[in-house]
Amino acid sequence: MEQIAKGVWKISYGVPEEHTPVSMRKSKICFDGLEQVGKTANETIPDFIGQLTCQIRRRGVTITYPMDSDEDIYGFGLQLLSMNYAGRRRYTKVNSDPRMDTGESHAPVPFYISTAGYGLFVDTYRYVTFSMGTNARKGASAQKKEVNQPHEEFSESALYALKKSNETRQVLIDIPSAEGIDIYVFAGDIMEVVQRYNLFSGGGCLPPMWGLGIWYRAYGGCDGESIVRLADSFREDHMPIDVIGIEPGWHSHSYACTFDWSYLFPEPGAMLKSLQEKDFHVNLWEHAFVYPAAEIYDSLQDYSGDCEVWNGLVPDLSLSGAQLVFKKWHQEHLMEKGVTGFKLDECDNSDFNPSNWSFPDASQFPSGMDGEQMHSAIGVLYQQMMEQAFREENIRTLSQVRSSGALAAPLPFVLYSDLYQHEEFIRGIATAPFSGLLWSPEVRDCVNGEDLLRRIQTVCFSTQALINSWRIPSPPWKQTNIEKNLAGIEIEEAKYYTDTCRRIFELRMSLLPYLYSAFVEYYKNGIPPIRPLCMEYPHDLQVRNIDDQYFFGKDMMVCPITMAQKGEREAYLPEGKWYDLFSGEEIMGGKWFHIRADVEKIPVYVRDGAVVPFAEPVQCVREDTVFHMHVRHYGKKAGSFVLYEDDFTSYDYEVNGFRKIQILVDETGRKSILGIEVCKKYLF
Amino acid sequence: MEQIAKGVWKISYGVPEEHTPVSMRKSKICFDGLEQVGKTANETIPDFIGQLTCQIRRRGVTITYPMDSDEDIYGFGLQLLSMNYAGRRRYTKVNSDPRMDTGESHAPVPFYISTAGYGLFVDTYRYVTFSMGTNARKGASAQKKEVNQPHEEFSESALYALKKSNETRQVLIDIPSAEGIDIYVFAGDIMEVVQRYNLFSGGGCLPPMWGLGIWYRAYGGCDGESIVRLADSFREDHMPIDVIGIEPGWHSHSYACTFDWSYLFPEPGAMLKSLQEKDFHVNLWEHAFVYPAAEIYDSLQDYSGDCEVWNGLVPDLSLSGAQLVFKKWHQEHLMEKGVTGFKLDECDNSDFNPSNWSFPDASQFPSGMDGEQMHSAIGVLYQQMMEQAFREENIRTLSQVRSSGALAAPLPFVLYSDLYQHEEFIRGIATAPFSGLLWSPEVRDCVNGEDLLRRIQTVCFSTQALINSWRIPSPPWKQTNIEKNLAGIEIEEAKYYTDTCRRIFELRMSLLPYLYSAFVEYYKNGIPPIRPLCMEYPHDLQVRNIDDQYFFGKDMMVCPITMAQKGEREAYLPEGKWYDLFSGEEIMGGKWFHIRADVEKIPVYVRDGAVVPFAEPVQCVREDTVFHMHVRHYGKKAGSFVLYEDDFTSYDYEVNGFRKIQILVDETGRKSILGIEVCKKYLF
Repeated sequence: MEQIAKGVWKISYGVPEEHTPVSMRKSKICFDGLEQVGKTANETIPDFIGQLTCQIRRRGVTITYPMDSDEDIYGFGLQLLSMNYAGRRRYTKVNSDPRMDTGESHAPVPFYISTAGYGLFVDTYRYVTFSMGTNARKGASAQKKEVNQPHEEFSESALYALKKSNETRQVLIDIPSAEGIDIYVFAGDIMEVVQRYNLFSGGGCLPPMWGLGIWYRAYGGCDGESIVRLADSFREDHMPIDVIGIEPGWHSHSYACTFDWSYLFPEPGAMLKSLQEKDFHVNLWEHAFVYPAAEIYDSLQDYSGDCEVWNGLVPDLSLSGAQLVFKKWHQEHLMEKGVTGFKLDECDNSDFNPSNWSFPDASQFPSGMDGEQMHSAIGVLYQQMMEQAFREENIRTLSQVRSSGALAAPLPFVLYSDLYQHEEFIRGIATAPFSGLLWSPEVRDCVNGEDLLRRIQTVCFSTQALINSWRIPSPPWKQTNIEKNLAGIEIEEAKYYTDTCRRIFELRMSLLPYLYSAFVEYYKNGIPPIRPLCMEYPHDLQVRNIDDQYFFGKDMMVCPITMAQKGEREAYLPEGKWYDLFSGEEIMGGKWFHIRADVEKIPVYVRDGAVVPFAEPVQCVREDTVFHMHVRHYGKKAGSFVLYEDDFTSYDYEVNGFRKIQILVDETGRKSILGIEVCKKYLF
Repeated sequence: MEQIAKGVWKISYGVPEEHTPVSMRKSKICFDGLEQVGKTANETIPDFIGQLTCQIRRRGVTITYPMDSDEDIYGFGLQLLSMNYAGRRRYTKVNSDPRMDTGESHAPVPFYISTAGYGLFVDTYRYVTFSMGTNARKGASAQKKEVNQPHEEFSESALYALKKSNETRQVLIDIPSAEGIDIYVFAGDIMEVVQRYNLFSGGGCLPPMWGLGIWYRAYGGCDGESIVRLADSFREDHMPIDVIGIEPGWHSHSYACTFDWSYLFPEPGAMLKSLQEKDFHVNLWEHAFVYPAAEIYDSLQDYSGDCEVWNGLVPDLSLSGAQLVFKKWHQEHLMEKGVTGFKLDECDNSDFNPSNWSFPDASQFPSGMDGEQMHSAIGVLYQQMMEQAFREENIRTLSQVRSSGALAAPLPFVLYSDLYQHEEFIRGIATAPFSGLLWSPEVRDCVNGEDLLRRIQTVCFSTQALINSWRIPSPPWKQTNIEKNLAGIEIEEAKYYTDTCRRIFELRMSLLPYLYSAFVEYYKNGIPPIRPLCMEYPHDLQVRNIDDQYFFGKDMMVCPITMAQKGEREAYLPEGKWYDLFSGEEIMGGKWFHIRADVEKIPVYVRDGAVVPFAEPVQCVREDTVFHMHVRHYGKKAGSFVLYEDDFTSYDYEVNGFRKIQILVDETGRKSILGIEVCKKYLF
């Protein structure tokens, strides 16, 4: 065992594999940040480490240790179907269609957090099975002799319900194929473990300010002209939009991709210029599979795996040769023309789709990686490469990606999914932050206007406020029905929905500086900008399973409402006084309460003493945007808030740091604002 | 490469694992039967064998070979979600909850059939991934240069649809962990390959005649008295029932099991005697997990795996020591008291259930098997042990099992599932026979009376006509609604549904001798008693994807109708004349046609010249039952049928063979019946 940093230890068994998340990381451990985490100067080794056992067999590596009956377990990456894995299994296979709650996901991560005061990361690209107290060791129950107990109910749900047991069970970690393994242990409560994992990963990413604005992915059938018309219509309607996404049709061939413009976009340079003049950022869809007609095809032949996907090469993105070809093409042909982000699609896997896509787990890559490892790695390798391409241009991006994995906190990419349950999308907001991931509950197909508003409320209180209209030519606020939208028919209430959506977008825009501060905390201290309640209140047993409320930035607790809930829900407010973000109404916490909220309102509460800097909403974030700030103080406690300023678009903050505005409010409500004199982008 | 029998070859690579289906088989290869299969005296080696490549790496064994674009692929065990796997992946993991179409199932089998004239069996208990032409080799598409093709539609289904390609692709078989593998290749068309696989497995099982009657599983809350009352009510209502199943409540503890009677059954001997006197067979529910209060617990400690399931031991059923303890207890306490069958539940696996049941893949067993191997094996090992227990008593059983696997044809157990889509249950009837498996689309929860009748029609044209009323005290024909059934409320139309169900049951009972002959063909020649159309018409491309019609016995083609189809469906009749089983109406085949069938009728058609022996329906099959036979001839061709007779209950047929009645009908419809003089159980 080796101590890596304060509160972080490494334990090695056998001969680990060559290709692992740690061996292929690009970001450096944030030792400075790690020094700051935790309440004490030193951190003791978690007890359970003494009880770890490891066996190495032909089948792979097995690690076991005892687990207490009252431990709760979180993590394992983006999980849409549940949040607490005590007594359950997780299988960390990349899968874009996980309809069963197995642990498979767009972004599984072999890392978990126990409420017993530690986190554990298994450094592997293998599909690991974690049995988190599912079974006791043989003989543990030998004293149980009760018989003739009546059965109460006869149903599958009664039969197979998860029953918490009070015996000590065991954790069993099953890592196939490996002949050895490194594991990393992080000490602390839930938040401290997450901070340490994120700082070990390299610290959280910092998006450009424009990335926090509103995103709109245009209809798949758009050509260059219709993209520009759509952009004009947003400005005419005064809909705040910062980013326009263009779908596969921009490629001269997809699927697989050519990464070059199609006949639908005869003058891409003029289109990009026009969009820039209207202050839009442009995000382009792509995936990594390279079609034979692509200019980079020949250069990538030797750097590709042994199987084709959609008639295209699968580049081995672990090789610097492949990275160079890919980066150079993107930089010269797209980034330098003004493209500031990409949507990296289908880098996840789906064996389960009717389509014959993706590569087999047993396929081989020139680096020596096999398909299983590459499935776990490709999402992160793709992000690392594209982030590097932008970094070389000193341009920050916030982009999209459909698969991610271990040590991804420093990567400015947000996950999304084709699965589309609002309830599950909300759960993703709560689960992604345990493992250094960002998640967007993007708004796509909506049943009706109410569904649209509820989903837009949720997405505007998430990392990335994304409307994905790839199936519809007109915005959903003009028509939610896909067929009618395609037929050009507007709903009667189009004006109402346009106005209401605009108001929600403006609320989001007013919170940009507030959210940017949360990202700076992510970057510096590893604190996720959005996070579940149990990270904030690790000792409150009531919040251990709450996956439909979450913290947004420093002090706001969001309780989204789905259409199915019909305007009502139960919510839990932890101990203390709480205040309605909008009305300022005071509510006593430490209990569950019933919320009613009409369709235009998302329930958000702030803590006693919260200081929230609101900006006057802008249409979009331009180079010269100045935020006009209004500070609101809630409750009777003293409070504070720090705003951070830099150029909001380049990597210069890594060298120059930030200018700070410190807002202090005392018990009487008197505000003092420090640092105004050095700031240029915030006006009070 | 080694020739095993006519049309069967074995190919070995590396050092195969110790525990495999072949190494642990109990049944002998039917060499005599294998000599009879096929149209020619010799059989040539399938071409593709020359192109097999095998690589052995730390990760496991990989086998590849080219696959033509027009090959269709069947098999892989019980598959409820699709039937043809050309262009798709199959993953042979045991899973009781496979909601996605991955290949996982109650009974996955690493065996498939190609329409290119061969079948291939991979002799392993590992979870194998078969990529059946999903990918081409790198470079195969290098000449594709078409660009700027318009996209037609923007939807997920369009994007991810299975597109058949016209290039040669590859089969890739991924066997994890193994350092070597034996594969077995079977030559022939679909039927011949299936016959050869079944005869290689040991030939099909032959159930006792009573096992082909109607089965009824009683309410989970029943005690001994209510079981007897229920039995009386069946005889009073003249409902033909042969078997009564008793659910977990008979154990003094479940889950895990004690295998001994609970306080609800204070006089089990008297109850069993009473049921026997009423001519019922008794089937008892159990699973293999052994509760500490079980008398056999201590004896099984040393023969059990290292993890508990439901506080119980997991016996290593590959060890003769464990088998002896288990068999002896069952023989002395249950079989010798008159129990003639068991329902072996939960020997499948489910990582995906909220409950913390089953053992981890990485758990260890005293035989040296690991949990992955044991999950694949335990269903078959359990069946082998229980079949052996009955065989030692010279009693044939037909029983139930929730998991099965490779080489299971000789085992008299029928699969069932908790998943409950009627359409999927029908598909199971078509897919199970590819891999030597029997499947019951058991009737359980029904939405309403129509659903009940449609499902009962299907189950009566399946291997096992099973009504599973574990959740309801009264039969479903008295009340389909679970809550109302529990409250003792009968539907108004109870008499109508009772009468209609009785008529369907009587139809089944009239076909018992017909179906028994089909099972004798299964036993002797490996021909599945129930089978998909493509086994009968391998060269008719129309039938390649038909998974909702099937052959029942020699000449009947069944086209079940689900409630959702509202009394109508399309069906395909292969070339030739067909006749409605009931009305005798003639229909020209070689085309699709539209069926209408009222709720009391299941569409069944027979081939031109079919000779169908109907029996006068009996209430149940007793030792002294004599079947009163009526022969019907359909169409204008000459035809024949062979009835087989033995004691219908013991294994004596293995030594003494069968008495045969041969029914011949010439073109004029004149019947001659040969062998009547030596028969005792069929009367004409």
